[in-house]
Amino acid sequence: MPDFSAWIDRELPRFHDELEAFLRIPSISTDPEHAGDVRACAEWVAEHLEAAGIPGAEVIETGGHPIVLGERTHAEDAPTVLVYGHYDVQPSEPDELWSSPPFEPAVRDGRLYARGAVDDKGQVHMHIKALETRLGSGADVPVNLKLVIEGEEEVGSRHLNAFLGDHAERLACDAVLISDTGMFSPELPCITTGLRGIVYTEINVFGPSSDLHSGTYGGAVVNPANALAAILAGLRDQQGRATVPGYYDAVRPITARERADLERLPMDEETLRAGVGAPALGGEAGFSALERLWYRPTLDVNGMLSGFTGEGSKTVLPSRAMAKVSMRLVPDQDPAQVIEAFEARVRELAPEGVRVEIKRSHGGAPWVADTDHPVFEAAGAALESGFGTPPAFVREGGSIPIVQAFEETFGAPALLIGFALPGCNMHAPNEWIDLEVYRKGIGALADLYGRLGNRLG
Amino acid sequence: MPDFSAWIDRELPRFHDELEAFLRIPSISTDPEHAGDVRACAEWVAEHLEAAGIPGAEVIETGGHPIVLGERTHAEDAPTVLVYGHYDVQPSEPDELWSSPPFEPAVRDGRLYARGAVDDKGQVHMHIKALETRLGSGADVPVNLKLVIEGEEEVGSRHLNAFLGDHAERLACDAVLISDTGMFSPELPCITTGLRGIVYTEINVFGPSSDLHSGTYGGAVVNPANALAAILAGLRDQQGRATVPGYYDAVRPITARERADLERLPMDEETLRAGVGAPALGGEAGFSALERLWYRPTLDVNGMLSGFTGEGSKTVLPSRAMAKVSMRLVPDQDPAQVIEAFEARVRELAPEGVRVEIKRSHGGAPWVADTDHPVFEAAGAALESGFGTPPAFVREGGSIPIVQAFEETFGAPALLIGFALPGCNMHAPNEWIDLEVYRKGIGALADLYGRLGNRLG
Repeated sequence: MPDFSAWIDRELPRFHDELEAFLRIPSISTDPEHAGDVRACAEWVAEHLEAAGIPGAEVIETGGHPIVLGERTHAEDAPTVLVYGHYDVQPSEPDELWSSPPFEPAVRDGRLYARGAVDDKGQVHMHIKALETRLGSGADVPVNLKLVIEGEEEVGSRHLNAFLGDHAERLACDAVLISDTGMFSPELPCITTGLRGIVYTEINVFGPSSDLHSGTYGGAVVNPANALAAILAGLRDQQGRATVPGYYDAVRPITARERADLERLPMDEETLRAGVGAPALGGEAGFSALERLWYRPTLDVNGMLSGFTGEGSKTVLPSRAMAKVSMRLVPDQDPAQVIEAFEARVRELAPEGVRVEIKRSHGGAPWVADTDHPVFEAAGAALESGFGTPPAFVREGGSIPIVQAFEETFGAPALLIGFALPGCNMHAPNEWIDLEVYRKGIGALADLYGRLGNRLG
Repeated sequence: MPDFSAWIDRELPRFHDELEAFLRIPSISTDPEHAGDVRACAEWVAEHLEAAGIPGAEVIETGGHPIVLGERTHAEDAPTVLVYGHYDVQPSEPDELWSSPPFEPAVRDGRLYARGAVDDKGQVHMHIKALETRLGSGADVPVNLKLVIEGEEEVGSRHLNAFLGDHAERLACDAVLISDTGMFSPELPCITTGLRGIVYTEINVFGPSSDLHSGTYGGAVVNPANALAAILAGLRDQQGRATVPGYYDAVRPITARERADLERLPMDEETLRAGVGAPALGGEAGFSALERLWYRPTLDVNGMLSGFTGEGSKTVLPSRAMAKVSMRLVPDQDPAQVIEAFEARVRELAPEGVRVEIKRSHGGAPWVADTDHPVFEAAGAALESGFGTPPAFVREGGSIPIVQAFEETFGAPALLIGFALPGCNMHAPNEWIDLEVYRKGIGALADLYGRLGNRLG
């Protein structure tokens, strides 16, 4: 087997130059003024796939920003790996908080700073360079490749599901490889094996037909703001648990293996607390912070609005009170069941004298990987080869709806290997990627593409 | 005794013309552009006091809008009555909702429509015309008079307390007569014998130093919006009672006389409910709506704000949550004690993991009249003479801080006789005064000024 490290080390200055060129394109998908930049970025990706040894990459129209589709067939009976990433980025505002301009990449202390450095251009680039490393050093890539690099991830992947459906046969695959997540420390590679689902709602409580004077009417009329507070408070108990009936029935207990993985992580709750600037951590009694974040569901108020909210005082009885309430779900909670039980509970908690409306905003199922699948063994070995230590299985508290979309469309496992470090400022000013992680990661991915050929074969 | 009715009936067209002239002056105290109109209105009042037989009325500077002070001495040993009213008005917006222009008085169906028609120009005018009626018809006014007509009532009577303090000796009096309240129906004159006090606060709950992603952090960090909901809900029990320790200890029980007065009132709870457009009335268990409004204290959320409140969904853990909370107090609750107990209760209810700040916005003591004082007997007889039925003793759920200011400054009872009818649109478009109430009221007040001379003498 060729020495990938030596090849990578030799080519690394060029890799950096290319990545910087990629990062100079302000492919901000949410801003119509940047639509041309987004398209130029798609073209850039297609050209660089070609340069890496994957000729004929297409830029495919979607009705929104285009999707880049690269394909390379190794052998008809070889397993197929679909690689997903995105070339669009978040807006850069507030620009004045950036130490160097967001679209002028700058290296400081081993980090490359730019919008998109790690989310997700840097990680997409690592895959392209890992494939180039194998092909350039004569190792070949022993799997059939489908690279799907989209331009709308930061605006909700609006056209991705339709694209996957339209090209389901062409994109059929044995595994989906996604690098858009994180790792716990530069020394500890991570595979994300679980994501929480979500149910998001809006509760509106209506009382009198218009705001009333709180002196003239206070005490005789049910106040919707009082009522909403009672509803919201009644949705959680003293231990921080949701009181929605049956809410915890389907929640999988944490396994011994999962606890062992958690204990391996260099997790310090005081660092977490200081990082968010809260007086103290808190949450459901009886669980550590990581357990609460990854393995336990939540019920959180995301917003509240009622009555007078300006400076000073206004003696008003509000006619209406509104709250946004969401629940983060874990396997095997079912969003459809949860929203039904939630609505029933809200109505049960509402006092007489007010009318309650509940809007369902969006929902998504939780996801958990089958870590017994052979791709996890391949990934474990590859990451150990690149970083010198086997990966930890971690989870994320949020949702990545495309993961379920890929698994459902193709019936193939999703493998989430991410390289974003804590504090890397995704979606914030001064986003960065660790260049040592970038280098090691390319080596690990180059190794992985070889192992996937064996494991999936 | 001269026949006041005949005199009033003969002069009524002129009274109407004068009142309309008064109402044409847009004396909107909150709007700096109308400062000249406010001053012109003060001059108008002074001139019309002169025309009514009270020469030498002064327009006194205050640092804000001027106060009109009229004085008439009957005899050195006669009792002194201070009459308070205000000549400033609320803004008229939204003007497009007025059926006739707010400063072009118009009569329809026995009502005179204009901004200030009943609050308070119409009622001030009734007093001036009652005095003119006595003097013009040769009955004299057997009390010494101090008329204090201010121009800043609608902006919080900003300079009134200082004025009263500065002129305490000159304004010393045996009773304070105020007509700026309401009556229950055109046939039932009312004396307002109680007002609720208020304590107004703002609670701020602080958690993480900035908004967090509810997926990444939900479950590990105490959510200030959840915490605030729990605090607000914990401040009230299932029966709608405040859980502030000792809150009800000083509340006076409702007396048999008070219950009898309540039963006399043509009060229909369904009419109240329909009027405010609420699905149902509600409040503290075990009390009627009027009892809850007049005799029981409240604890109400006046406003709430936290996190994301726009359309759709944003998965944010708010860093902060705010609520305005006020309590309407009844005799003998003490605002200073209440706010201390309230703050202690809020801190007790706050979970660990958040920081709570409480701002005290403003407060005022409840007030109740000593209805055994002879002015109440005089007022009862006078109102019966004018309306054909003895007055009901009513209360108001709101506060009128100047009432306590007068009583405290002069050690004299305040007599609140009001002529605003339900639905008269004070502070709203299409404000009106009932012209039959205006006519009868002038007669009743003319009678009252005579009786006060006897009763207080």
